[in-house]
Amino acid sequence: MDVPSRLGLTVEEFASLEDHLKRRTYEGTSYRFLPDYRSSLEKGTVIFEDTIIRGFPKIPRTLVLETGIPRHFDERLVAEEKLNGYNVRIARVEGDMFAFTRSGLICPFTTYVVEQMLELDAFFDDHPAVILCGEMIGPENPYTAHHYPEVASLAFRAFDIRDRSSGEPYPVKERRGWCDDHDIPQTAYLGEFDLDTATDRLPSIIDELEREQREGVVLRDPDGSSPLKYTTSSANQGDLAFAYSLPFDYGQAFTFRRLIREAFQSHEWDEEGDERRERAQALGEAILLSMTDTIETVDDGERVGEQHTVRSDPEAIDRLLDHFVEQGLTIDIESDRHENGQRVVTFTKRVQRTNDKIDAYLDGTIVDI
Amino acid sequence: MDVPSRLGLTVEEFASLEDHLKRRTYEGTSYRFLPDYRSSLEKGTVIFEDTIIRGFPKIPRTLVLETGIPRHFDERLVAEEKLNGYNVRIARVEGDMFAFTRSGLICPFTTYVVEQMLELDAFFDDHPAVILCGEMIGPENPYTAHHYPEVASLAFRAFDIRDRSSGEPYPVKERRGWCDDHDIPQTAYLGEFDLDTATDRLPSIIDELEREQREGVVLRDPDGSSPLKYTTSSANQGDLAFAYSLPFDYGQAFTFRRLIREAFQSHEWDEEGDERRERAQALGEAILLSMTDTIETVDDGERVGEQHTVRSDPEAIDRLLDHFVEQGLTIDIESDRHENGQRVVTFTKRVQRTNDKIDAYLDGTIVDI
Repeated sequence: MDVPSRLGLTVEEFASLEDHLKRRTYEGTSYRFLPDYRSSLEKGTVIFEDTIIRGFPKIPRTLVLETGIPRHFDERLVAEEKLNGYNVRIARVEGDMFAFTRSGLICPFTTYVVEQMLELDAFFDDHPAVILCGEMIGPENPYTAHHYPEVASLAFRAFDIRDRSSGEPYPVKERRGWCDDHDIPQTAYLGEFDLDTATDRLPSIIDELEREQREGVVLRDPDGSSPLKYTTSSANQGDLAFAYSLPFDYGQAFTFRRLIREAFQSHEWDEEGDERRERAQALGEAILLSMTDTIETVDDGERVGEQHTVRSDPEAIDRLLDHFVEQGLTIDIESDRHENGQRVVTFTKRVQRTNDKIDAYLDGTIVDI
Repeated sequence: MDVPSRLGLTVEEFASLEDHLKRRTYEGTSYRFLPDYRSSLEKGTVIFEDTIIRGFPKIPRTLVLETGIPRHFDERLVAEEKLNGYNVRIARVEGDMFAFTRSGLICPFTTYVVEQMLELDAFFDDHPAVILCGEMIGPENPYTAHHYPEVASLAFRAFDIRDRSSGEPYPVKERRGWCDDHDIPQTAYLGEFDLDTATDRLPSIIDELEREQREGVVLRDPDGSSPLKYTTSSANQGDLAFAYSLPFDYGQAFTFRRLIREAFQSHEWDEEGDERRERAQALGEAILLSMTDTIETVDDGERVGEQHTVRSDPEAIDRLLDHFVEQGLTIDIESDRHENGQRVVTFTKRVQRTNDKIDAYLDGTIVDI
C-alpha cells in the first residue's frame, strides 16, 4: 500500500502535507516526520520506507472536573497519573529500536537509554506492530527536569500502547498486562470509576497529588480511547515559574492558559477567602520572583538559559550533545565529570531573547512595553 | 496646499494610507480619521476639508529610570503627573469646537462636557491653530473610570498643547502659562531637574504617587519634546486586575507588559525579600481574584462587562449612548435616574468572549487550554 493510503489520506491531501515533512537520516536509516500540528495528520508522525509511526495525539483538557467528566465519558473511566517529563514513543522498525520525541525526531540519547533500561526486544517480539508510549522523568533529564522522590536520575514510565499504523490505543487492562509481563514500569494506576464516583473521588486524588507536588491525571475510557487530562496547581505554578524565568522566550499563551486553569480550579474547589488568597499569592510569587531572579542574573553579567544535567555512558552523552548541535541549539557546558564509569554533564541551552531584551531594558532602552 | 503636502507625505504615501482612513459626519461636518497605528502618520489624525488635526503620539516608556533618563534626555527635563483617564484632543475648526478621542473620532459627549467646563472660546481666540490635549479623569467617565479624591464626577486636565498642523508641542512653560491665563486645569507640575537630580529624586516622587494610588509621571524636555513615561505599581496592578476581570477580551500582550514593568521596578527599587514578596503577592491577587470573581458572576447566571457611570445633561447622555450604538457596541442600561436636573446613567458595555468562554468551560467543554 502506498504512503497516503496507509495514512488514510487521499493522494492530494498527502501532497499538500509533503512540504511540511522534514527528512532526516539516523545511522543510515532515512525517515521523514511531521514536526508541527496539521489538521489531517498528527504532529510527530514518522514515515520510514515501509513503516508508519503515528504521532502521539494532543490530549484535551477539562477546566472543570464535575461537568467535564460526564460530558466526555459514556459510562466508566480509568484514572492514571500524568507525569511531568518528556513524551517518548518507542518502536522497532525492521529490527532497529528507535525512541522518538514528540515532534517525530529520533533522539539518539533516549534511544540509547531506553535500550539499556528496558527489555525492549522481548516486548517487541511479542508485540511487533505497536508503539510503546511513555514519559521520561527525573532530575537528570535533557528536556524537562522535575523531581520525583522515586527517581534518582532518569526513568521511563509507560502510559499508552498504540497500533503504529493506525495510532489506535489498546485497552488499558491489556496495555498494563503487557507492560507487567515485560517488567516495563508504568504510570500509577489510580482506579476505575463510574462517572458519579469519578467526579466524587477525583478532587481528593488531585489533592493528594498536589501535596506531593505531582503533575496530575489522565482519564480515559477503559478501552484506551478518549484521554482527558487535568493538572494540579503545583504543576501550573511550576510551569509559570519556569516560563517567567525566561519571560521573552516563552509564549504569552503558555502562561495565560495556566492562569486560567488556576482560576477555574479555585472556583471548582470552592475555596474560601484565605485559601484562595494563598493560591493567588503563591501564583504571584511564581511569576514575579522568577523574573526578578532572572533580571538580577543578567544584571550581574551572567547569561540565563535552560539548565539540565544528564548522566549516562560517555557515548550516549556525546550523541545527545551532537544531536542538539544538529538541531541548531547553542549549548554551554557548565560541568563535565565522570562518576563510576558514567559521564555527568550539566549544560545550558542558550536562549536569546530574554538575555538581549533584559540587557537592553536595564540599559535604559526606550520601549513600547 | 493639498492634503498630502500638509501631512508632509508624498502623493504616493498618502494614497497608500487612504484605504485605512475612515469617514464620518458630525452634525453636518464631514471628516476622515486614521484609527490605527501606521508608520507614516500618527494614529488619530483627523482630516477636515481645510484643516488637519494631528494624532497624539504614542509616548515611549523606560523600564529603568536610572539608565533611561540619561539615555533619553540631553540636559534638563520637566516632570508632570500622568493621569489615568482617557486622552482627549480639543480643537476649534472653522468656528466649531470638537473633542477627539485617541483614535480620531469626535466624541459628542466629551465635546459637550468640555464646552461646559472650560472657557474654550477665549482660549482658541488667543491660540486658534493649536490642539489642547488632556486627560478626562474621575469616577463618572464613560471610558476609563479611576478614583481621584479631587474629582467628584468628571474633569479635564491639560497636559500638552500642540500645533494642529505639524503636531509639534509648545514648550512646557508657555503651555502652562496659556492654560493658567484661561483657567484651564492642568496635570500637576512636579519640577524641573537636571539629569542627576532627576534620577535621584524621581523614585521618591513615584513612591509618593504610589501611596496615593496615582498613575505615574510624564517626563519631557522643557521645550515640550521627547516625552517619556513611567508608571507606579498601583497603576500596573490596577490594569492587571481590570484586564483579568475580562480575561478573554483583553490581549495577553497587555498583561504581559505590566508584569514585566513590575519586575523591572522591583529590581530598580532594590526591594528586600519581604518587600518583593509582598509586591508579588499583591500582583497574584490582582490576577487571580479578578478572574475568580468573574467566573463566579458568570456561574451565577449574570453577564460581565465594562461598567461605567456618567452624569451630565440629559441631552449629552443621549448623544453618548447614540454614539456607542453607532460604533456597534451593545450597551445595557443598569440604572437611569435624575439628580438636580442632571441625568445619571450606569451602563455596561457588553463583552462577548469572556462570557461565552467561561460559560462553555463551566459547562465542561473540552479545551486545548
